[in-house]
Amino acid sequence: MSNAGAVKPVSEARVRVRYAETDQMGVVYHSNYLIWFEVGRVELIRQMGLDYKQMEEDGCGISVVDVHARYRAPARYDDELVIETRLLAARGPVVKFGYRILRVGDGVLLCEGETMHVCVGKDMKKMCLPPKYAERFAARLIS
Amino acid sequence: MSNAGAVKPVSEARVRVRYAETDQMGVVYHSNYLIWFEVGRVELIRQMGLDYKQMEEDGCGISVVDVHARYRAPARYDDELVIETRLLAARGPVVKFGYRILRVGDGVLLCEGETMHVCVGKDMKKMCLPPKYAERFAARLIS
Amino acid sequence: MSNAGAVKPVSEARVRVRYAETDQMGVVYHSNYLIWFEVGRVELIRQMGLDYKQMEEDGCGISVVDVHARYRAPARYDDELVIETRLLAARGPVVKFGYRILRVGDGVLLCEGETMHVCVGKDMKKMCLPPKYAERFAARLIS
Amino acid sequence: MSNAGAVKPVSEARVRVRYAETDQMGVVYHSNYLIWFEVGRVELIRQMGLDYKQMEEDGCGISVVDVHARYRAPARYDDELVIETRLLAARGPVVKFGYRILRVGDGVLLCEGETMHVCVGKDMKKMCLPPKYAERFAARLIS
Repeated sequence: MSNAGAVKPVSEARVRVRYAETDQMGVVYHSNYLIWFEVGRVELIRQMGLDYKQMEEDGCGISVVDVHARYRAPARYDDELVIETRLLAARGPVVKFGYRILRVGDGVLLCEGETMHVCVGKDMKKMCLPPKYAERFAARLIS
Repeated sequence: MSNAGAVKPVSEARVRVRYAETDQMGVVYHSNYLIWFEVGRVELIRQMGLDYKQMEEDGCGISVVDVHARYRAPARYDDELVIETRLLAARGPVVKFGYRILRVGDGVLLCEGETMHVCVGKDMKKMCLPPKYAERFAARLIS
Repeated sequence: MSNAGAVKPVSEARVRVRYAETDQMGVVYHSNYLIWFEVGRVELIRQMGLDYKQMEEDGCGISVVDVHARYRAPARYDDELVIETRLLAARGPVVKFGYRILRVGDGVLLCEGETMHVCVGKDMKKMCLPPKYAERFAARLIS
Repeated sequence: MSNAGAVKPVSEARVRVRYAETDQMGVVYHSNYLIWFEVGRVELIRQMGLDYKQMEEDGCGISVVDVHARYRAPARYDDELVIETRLLAARGPVVKFGYRILRVGDGVLLCEGETMHVCVGKDMKKMCLPPKYAERFAARLIS
């Protein structure tokens, strides 16, 4: 992934594994990675100069329609993790993100995945990204 | 607790412990009991002939303001549990419920507690229970 | 999917949407479907005459390595849902399941997906399904 | 609360509200505060020079037996929160913590509460805090 310009194409967010996120196998329960994908996604949007909370209040939510996650190694209690997020696509009503979650301590890749979203209004109906958001998303794709 | 009339004062709801609800200690993580209290509360309201979803759509939510839970023994993965719920008080804007969660297999008491709520409108402002609901709640207290 | 024999190839489990599972968009947060997939998977295993809790105590856990979920329509608070689960593959250490989650009230398909698992021992190392389990899984595939 | 010595008696941990933690009332679902209490507790233990993960591996878990939470104002999506935690008691097998959760933006107190724990070994049996831990906990109480 080339990164010639000033903008870093991948955002990084950090989380520490909470006790509630572990299960009796002694590792993180797998659905929590989807919540961390969302933490990463919101952080990327923030780094794009936008605010997902504001987007939603403006009537532009991005609702999840497809999730794919591949689990490589288990995260454990109290691990510090980094969530790398990048924008993969933004066309019309569709937005796609990609994720890699690594353990900070040893750099091991724990999980990677993608999510696909459609932009929805307050009535939950599909709509194209409004121009002011579409431009920012497009700019991020080029970088 | 006397139960001379036809109405059973305590509602019963059943849940089975999910893998996601366990933690690395090999037992259920303690915050899940609050979610089960809510399952019990909604079931009691249903048995009172009301529908919490409808109440909320009518602009009468019951927001939690105080929770007290005492953990007696741990629930484990795949345990079937019964949540006993009773109405403890309903006066003006305030509603109180009491709970006991037992394991179905051996009848062991796992957790007991109480929650206090205030009735709130769609603007999240405190309000008295509307008469049509207040009457049902009062009737439940007498039984 | 042919179903000539006596055994129903698809298990059914029911859940009711809890308040904790909703988000501020007014619908179920998407990671909860993965927890429901697991509820369905455990129920299928139970209908195969096995007990996942016992399997794990025997040192035969089935750890999730891949999840794919496609969201078709949102589940809402208090909806009663049916989780249909089928076994898609079981070869060596690998087991695959498929899921469909529908709303009981109107039969609408809300989510479908697949999970892939590897059998792991108590040391979290990959291993083939032990013969006593492999046979049951194979029988389920044929039916 | 006097604080004459060098040690700060209250630890501070920060979290940002995740979308998954909201509910359809548009605010944080109340059971999540218990998970944040635990985040605060683990951070306090870290600031005491201990590591809860290590304590548990040493056979000294602190299992929750009582939780009391009072909700003052709702946390909302994307709010940054500070969790203030202090040690209230540590005698024999019993440890008590107190918590205050405030919104960073406006300093509003959102929730306060207490948890009581008993020290348990790997067999989940109650035991006194081992001396090396008891001393650290006692020192924290005096400060």
